[in-house]
Amino acid sequence: MKVCVIGLGLIGGSFALALKGHRLAECVYGVDASSRHAEKALELGLVDEIVSLDKAVEVADVIAIATPVDAIPQLAIKLLNRVSDKQIVMDMGSTKEELCELISQHPRRNRFVATHPMWGTEHSGPEAAVEGAFAGCNTVICEAEHSDKDAVAEVENIFKGIGMAIMYMSAEKHDTHAAYVSHISHITSFILATTVLEKERESDTILNLAGGGFESTVRLAKSSPDMWIPILMQNKYNILDVLREYIHQLEIFRKAIEKDNREEIRETINRANTIRKILDKK
Amino acid sequence: MKVCVIGLGLIGGSFALALKGHRLAECVYGVDASSRHAEKALELGLVDEIVSLDKAVEVADVIAIATPVDAIPQLAIKLLNRVSDKQIVMDMGSTKEELCELISQHPRRNRFVATHPMWGTEHSGPEAAVEGAFAGCNTVICEAEHSDKDAVAEVENIFKGIGMAIMYMSAEKHDTHAAYVSHISHITSFILATTVLEKERESDTILNLAGGGFESTVRLAKSSPDMWIPILMQNKYNILDVLREYIHQLEIFRKAIEKDNREEIRETINRANTIRKILDKK
Repeated sequence: MKVCVIGLGLIGGSFALALKGHRLAECVYGVDASSRHAEKALELGLVDEIVSLDKAVEVADVIAIATPVDAIPQLAIKLLNRVSDKQIVMDMGSTKEELCELISQHPRRNRFVATHPMWGTEHSGPEAAVEGAFAGCNTVICEAEHSDKDAVAEVENIFKGIGMAIMYMSAEKHDTHAAYVSHISHITSFILATTVLEKERESDTILNLAGGGFESTVRLAKSSPDMWIPILMQNKYNILDVLREYIHQLEIFRKAIEKDNREEIRETINRANTIRKILDKK
Repeated sequence: MKVCVIGLGLIGGSFALALKGHRLAECVYGVDASSRHAEKALELGLVDEIVSLDKAVEVADVIAIATPVDAIPQLAIKLLNRVSDKQIVMDMGSTKEELCELISQHPRRNRFVATHPMWGTEHSGPEAAVEGAFAGCNTVICEAEHSDKDAVAEVENIFKGIGMAIMYMSAEKHDTHAAYVSHISHITSFILATTVLEKERESDTILNLAGGGFESTVRLAKSSPDMWIPILMQNKYNILDVLREYIHQLEIFRKAIEKDNREEIRETINRANTIRKILDKK
């Protein structure tokens, strides 16, 4: 099988490495809009060859789009315009509703598989690609009923082959859940970092006093704007909904501290503690 | 040297283990208000013997208080009432202003060393004690000028002996900085967990979709209310100050998303990204 990965950053680069590491592809081609990224990806051995989009359509059995989410729909449509009934186009983006709507009426929609492998780090670019990524995590496949069975089966094989489990979901449900368990975490981290940098002018003090707790909560604040602005825009309404609730809960907690309401604070922390039961199952 | 640790949970238990691991104490006594914790600490080998507070004063060269911060001032005063001019009393709490004020006029204030080793995890109780804790982190000593030189030197030796570096700070500065780089992170985690649990009723979905990012930002939400309520109360004004700023910054970001203001979002994320420069030095 020949695979072409479009977008050779954290996700695309790690996916290319995983394909090669698990011998799932005899050849991995790469496409990247940035020639610097393309060269770097080749130099790092993430892909075997850099090709044009046209060449990709000519040679690849599977074309995986791993660009920022704002570039995915147009690329998906251009690729579906050109591929045959044997080829498969898939994406790996963090939002699904906009994409699935835009391709919904395409006559070759059936050759597309919309996926979101739930893995990532706060780093970006080809240098951020790591071996062993994705393993042990879940991939969501959205609207599998609109894709050909052979295409879904092939994509499932690839994800299972790199150590992932598969879940199925509507694009709408996916975007709601992703806002809760992924997108909001990035916002809380970005703003925590901003607040601390604003209030704490002595960066040496942050450096010296920050323990593992602080590092853990602001880790995601290192994430790339090029990846995250499109996600925030495409999943805007779900994200605003969770964000409003988060601010509301913070206000309630702030007032409880102001009033020395120990009992209310205790109830909130006890409720927060129950997240342990969920996370420790993992 | 004989050391007695009061409060055999995460911090006290790990400190006892570190003292034994680095052969800094020939004997480590333990005191705990909970007989279950005391028995467990003995069973786990954290301490050599469980003693009463009176016995601790009789036999120990150094007495370290590692209880929740609301219990520290009274214990500190009771111990200072009884110790000799050769003994040392120290605390390991996460707030310092209230404590330092309450002991400031004690005739034996000079035998007290106020410290905050900047290490912790989200776990609690004797079972949370781990070997190798504290190493590579910083300890803050507050108001060292009010402690006898020999007492400060001995406490420094202990912390350096378990692999820590020492910083000096006023109690007031300590509490301000601690609110920024430690206390606020716990609040953002508690409330993130509460919000997600509130909005996301399907806990299986959290379990299946939560990646490393979500886990990292809510890890601290597992922290104990018994430890954290007293910290929130004792450092109330600093914490409210940072919390108000955090909510304010979140509101600004929320409005930027609402208005599709990509440039403002980009500026905020770029500013947040600079936390990388600080954290990556560590």
